[in-house]
Amino acid sequence: MSDLRERLVAVVGAEHVLDGTASPELAHDEALAVGHGTPAVVVRPGSTADVVGIVDAARATHTALVARGAGTGLSGGANAPDGAVVVAFDRMTAIRAIDTTDHVAVVEPGVSLAQLDAAAREHGLTYPVRPGEQSASLGGTVATNAGGMHAVRYGVTRAHVVGLEAVLADGTVVRTGGRLAKVSAGYDLTQLLVGSEGTLALVTEVTVRLQPHLPVRRTVLAPFADLPTTTAAVARVVGSGLAPALCEYLDDPTMDAICAAADLALGVPDEVRAGADAYLVVELVGRRAERVEEDLAELGELLTDAGAPDVYVLPEGSARRLVEAREQAFWTIKARGADEVVDVVVPRSAMAEFIGRSREIGERHGTRVLGCGHAGDGNVHFAVFGPGGDGHAAALDATLHEVLAAGVALGGAVSGEHGVGRAKAGALAELADPGALTTMRRVRAALDPDGLLNPGCGPV
Amino acid sequence: MSDLRERLVAVVGAEHVLDGTASPELAHDEALAVGHGTPAVVVRPGSTADVVGIVDAARATHTALVARGAGTGLSGGANAPDGAVVVAFDRMTAIRAIDTTDHVAVVEPGVSLAQLDAAAREHGLTYPVRPGEQSASLGGTVATNAGGMHAVRYGVTRAHVVGLEAVLADGTVVRTGGRLAKVSAGYDLTQLLVGSEGTLALVTEVTVRLQPHLPVRRTVLAPFADLPTTTAAVARVVGSGLAPALCEYLDDPTMDAICAAADLALGVPDEVRAGADAYLVVELVGRRAERVEEDLAELGELLTDAGAPDVYVLPEGSARRLVEAREQAFWTIKARGADEVVDVVVPRSAMAEFIGRSREIGERHGTRVLGCGHAGDGNVHFAVFGPGGDGHAAALDATLHEVLAAGVALGGAVSGEHGVGRAKAGALAELADPGALTTMRRVRAALDPDGLLNPGCGPV
Repeated sequence: MSDLRERLVAVVGAEHVLDGTASPELAHDEALAVGHGTPAVVVRPGSTADVVGIVDAARATHTALVARGAGTGLSGGANAPDGAVVVAFDRMTAIRAIDTTDHVAVVEPGVSLAQLDAAAREHGLTYPVRPGEQSASLGGTVATNAGGMHAVRYGVTRAHVVGLEAVLADGTVVRTGGRLAKVSAGYDLTQLLVGSEGTLALVTEVTVRLQPHLPVRRTVLAPFADLPTTTAAVARVVGSGLAPALCEYLDDPTMDAICAAADLALGVPDEVRAGADAYLVVELVGRRAERVEEDLAELGELLTDAGAPDVYVLPEGSARRLVEAREQAFWTIKARGADEVVDVVVPRSAMAEFIGRSREIGERHGTRVLGCGHAGDGNVHFAVFGPGGDGHAAALDATLHEVLAAGVALGGAVSGEHGVGRAKAGALAELADPGALTTMRRVRAALDPDGLLNPGCGPV
Repeated sequence: MSDLRERLVAVVGAEHVLDGTASPELAHDEALAVGHGTPAVVVRPGSTADVVGIVDAARATHTALVARGAGTGLSGGANAPDGAVVVAFDRMTAIRAIDTTDHVAVVEPGVSLAQLDAAAREHGLTYPVRPGEQSASLGGTVATNAGGMHAVRYGVTRAHVVGLEAVLADGTVVRTGGRLAKVSAGYDLTQLLVGSEGTLALVTEVTVRLQPHLPVRRTVLAPFADLPTTTAAVARVVGSGLAPALCEYLDDPTMDAICAAADLALGVPDEVRAGADAYLVVELVGRRAERVEEDLAELGELLTDAGAPDVYVLPEGSARRLVEAREQAFWTIKARGADEVVDVVVPRSAMAEFIGRSREIGERHGTRVLGCGHAGDGNVHFAVFGPGGDGHAAALDATLHEVLAAGVALGGAVSGEHGVGRAKAGALAELADPGALTTMRRVRAALDPDGLLNPGCGPV
């Protein structure tokens, strides 16, 4: 331990090596139901060379390394085991380039989504990944392959990352991809590292695509009487060619909760609300107002034709506040005492079935399974509330396990965008395709034979 | 050898085990300058179980396996070493599903791009990957991560593949991804396998996203006086938000050649052609004719403002024939005696510099380096013609080597979409980032420790 500290001090200086017991808030992310230990130290590299030195020190002392971005993750991917080194990237916050010819940004991993998007917007460009927390770091969102509301149009983080610099467990620095729109020159290590949650390498630089900013946006709200009708409408919206920038569903209790939390009235008459089991929120974007208006009319007809009793075009202020409130849904449901959140992804065609089965699972165990989700992507976000009392933990565990299993049985996966972390490592090991798991384990062992990188997280 | 044959006959039946000497056309792809050996046998599996049996037979007899789709590759990825087993997927041509809710297709690897797109079009959808050969197979395009003209809008093959079934070198069947819009549940093995050219696994099923078909398309041709002006215009087109479906450049000799080959007159006055060093071809697509016309006017202004002396909106027939002729450019330049084609990708910002340097390299060695390319992607396609005579081979080798090195030095990669194959395996080993190469080799060794899968191809 003192050996470890000495080595790290030699790399980054004493002021950037914090005692692990002194910074408990740096030992975990925002996951609700995952424990964490007490790290030996928190170390704050300022450069790629620092990261190489940190990896070398960890290897020499057989110490686990846990990378940490902004700590906004929801799966415990940044939760430190006892005695680990937390590598906090909060000093590496430089935007190295915004390139308006190649339409890319090159950033250090500690740069936040808000910081990057603001820099891009100065050039008429945008980084459209919106996982709900604009304070999230680029490094963290690369680690979890973060998604969010705009993924239905722009894709998840994976779709935007075109190059990485990273440090392997043996200290090798790897450069993948580049300021390139495409590449077919060997295995795509960029894509292998995106979503690997710090288990294969520590990312030290990220190159992402930027998109032209589309200035016009209009939002509609459509109530539906039941879930199958809601999700059938989603397929029509996605298949229409209207290319919505978001296509979210919210069940009625969740809509209530976020409207209450945001003090928001949406102008939906009481009798319509009374008959609504779920809502779709769809946003259209474009370069020209008249086209977006025209598309909005088409979207309204499509939604009515798909079964919505009426469609409400939201005034700009209400639309913005509703989207913000939806982004903050995690905090709302956390404040209301949710015990866990899950973000199972299923084929769009299976969404209604999955939500229905999950509600039944909750009823059977006396738990409540409520939610919203990125309907365009089949990505369902549930808040799960245990019954309280003696059977609380058992009912909660059973519900979570059965909900994840139901998603996988319907052709889905245990996480659409939050990542596996420590929260779902056991579920992945149990539920994922056995051949795929074997392959993941072989890749992990090949790149980190001593198991230094984020042990217990991801495919174990 | 007889042992190998017996084992394979037991798996697929004698009628599907061909003598390697009897089918020389199945021992290679369309690569111009890559040799190939004589395979022991060509075997034609009809199912995943057959592929597992073939892999087991190869492992038991220490025989190399080379996967073969339609044989339209350009890097020798399907070129068989002596004594290898060629696994030809031409019996696995079933379209298992066209799903209009999830907007995916599930196909066997021998399905052609033309077959898939035709099936999708029956449902108002399209599979937009257009690498220039619609006879290419899905399996082959997954292996090479094929690109093509539409990649500037829709992305390369990698952007479309959401799930795979594949057989590893030890016979393990792996299922990755699914009918899912997103997933963050362990390493993305789908993306690891796309572009791996049959060196990590044999793909037995492919799930791809389908896109709404956009019925309206309009094409413009813009001449430019020099390359820097041409490529500067490309950045403006891409950054405009007009989302072109193709953005191609052709140098003047290549435009001449393909117009002659297609017997095509484009209506560009002689004096304009005389002053043109390069052309851009830009296609806009959309759902509504009036919008595409409006965008076309905006595009015309943008191109004129960027330096085009005039802009020519092509009549539908001419546009279609020009695009077809551009797609057939490989055959045109092959017929004219090109010795090799390369498809280096560089940052868009470096395209003019790269083309300029490549021309200089050609001049220095007495070779000719002519081309066209997917300008929106920075993907430059050169035809290289040697000088003939005694110094032919040496001049050609030196040119190819220096052109690839120049591309990498400018931040590019040795292939944007053709893949490494055997043609560029040496160049990759020499020019790629050393850390990335080490990582690729470790991954390959972890998944194929005995080196059975396509030895000599890709990262070696």
